[in-house]
Amino acid sequence: MSFKLRMEAAAENARSNLVLALDLPPNTPEKLFATSKNLLETVQPHICAVKFNRHLILPLGLFDGVQQLLKQAQNHGLPTIMDCKINDIGNTNRIIAEHYFQAGFDAVIANPFVGWEEGLHPVFETADQMNRGVILLVYMSHKGAWEGYGQNVVTKKTGKSLRQYEVFAEKALAWGADGAVVGATYPEKIRELHSILTEKVPIYSPGIGAQGGNIEAAVRSGSTYFIVGRAITQAENPSQAAENFKRAANMARRNRPCEV
Amino acid sequence: MSFKLRMEAAAENARSNLVLALDLPPNTPEKLFATSKNLLETVQPHICAVKFNRHLILPLGLFDGVQQLLKQAQNHGLPTIMDCKINDIGNTNRIIAEHYFQAGFDAVIANPFVGWEEGLHPVFETADQMNRGVILLVYMSHKGAWEGYGQNVVTKKTGKSLRQYEVFAEKALAWGADGAVVGATYPEKIRELHSILTEKVPIYSPGIGAQGGNIEAAVRSGSTYFIVGRAITQAENPSQAAENFKRAANMARRNRPCEV
Repeated sequence: MSFKLRMEAAAENARSNLVLALDLPPNTPEKLFATSKNLLETVQPHICAVKFNRHLILPLGLFDGVQQLLKQAQNHGLPTIMDCKINDIGNTNRIIAEHYFQAGFDAVIANPFVGWEEGLHPVFETADQMNRGVILLVYMSHKGAWEGYGQNVVTKKTGKSLRQYEVFAEKALAWGADGAVVGATYPEKIRELHSILTEKVPIYSPGIGAQGGNIEAAVRSGSTYFIVGRAITQAENPSQAAENFKRAANMARRNRPCEV
Repeated sequence: MSFKLRMEAAAENARSNLVLALDLPPNTPEKLFATSKNLLETVQPHICAVKFNRHLILPLGLFDGVQQLLKQAQNHGLPTIMDCKINDIGNTNRIIAEHYFQAGFDAVIANPFVGWEEGLHPVFETADQMNRGVILLVYMSHKGAWEGYGQNVVTKKTGKSLRQYEVFAEKALAWGADGAVVGATYPEKIRELHSILTEKVPIYSPGIGAQGGNIEAAVRSGSTYFIVGRAITQAENPSQAAENFKRAANMARRNRPCEV
């Protein structure tokens, strides 16, 4: 089963399209590991997948603490995504992807800005060989995203001016990406990109909560998966916070008009 | 002393502008560590700095094996650069930079595509606070670099069409970057970018050797630092290979016409 279908199955099974971003503020490796383990255990009934970032990889080590957390997620049937935003040369990208996949990650996030030849081609190839997924950045959630993702670019083929994110969406379709990241902080971009990507490339939206993104707006605009980090991991009651996000998303999904 | 000046002093001291990219093909952590340690020891008389990548961070762990190698480099007076190509949201970027700096790295490489606000601003801020350096990607060394780094973008301010790498060079100047990465595989881009960046932002050129870049051409075009990885790390005699690169660069530097 492809990563895209594994995500669909996990979401159906959990009755939730919520992805936990296991992002914790700096602390000792021991405390980070214990907090992550507890968080995952308490929040797992309300989520369909877990996203990791350098918050844990760098202090815990990939094949040490993080691999144990990956096994914990797998035991709950939760796919795991490494948010490494791959953007190096192909030889290095392949090594990065191989390490994360070997540690147990089901998918990696990559930046299409690096291009195909000797860029992301080796990442898609490795993912194919190991039956894992690749999710592409299409429009990020932060304020400065307009500088790169929002800039106007003149395409070589037609000489026409397009937005960078439109170019990236076309690459996501052409390269067979398993998902596209579009920040929940820009619902109008989600809407525009969903009409290009359709259900072929599901949209993952980070930036909900701490960064100001609204989960109902992301649902209505066409996102499929909702990534929440600090608004759960730093909540007084993380399980309750996750449940609230799940319910809000499910409610909004039921009321969403027909798909494009 | 700023990172930029520390690099100048290290290069003067070593009579070499060669930066070793300590990139090794996948192996067991024990073998990777032992090989890295030996390589560093044998090559150190011929280099002025060491660049690390995920080839070592992921299998060895940042605060485990890599930190020991950083200390080894420091004992030889060699500044260390983490080629993490930072391109996440600001909150995460700050955590990434803090981890690398706390482990002992003197500089990080970042991707200006992510923008300033809630993008690279926190990275420059952290580097300022900890007296470390930030080197920006301006044109990468791989074949697919044209897709992103070479694309035409229409600037908001003037409506004029510029190359992406020109926009990045302007950001490197405006943001006070300590260096700019421009692939040795594109000497004509080095020439063009050196005329924009001048000596204010020294150019670091990877892609020499395995990727086809030529060190003399990089020198003549205006690069200051020459990054060599596989052509040294996988040479039969790494020390001899490093010495040859150092000599070739020094010879070409002596014959270089006056600076722009």
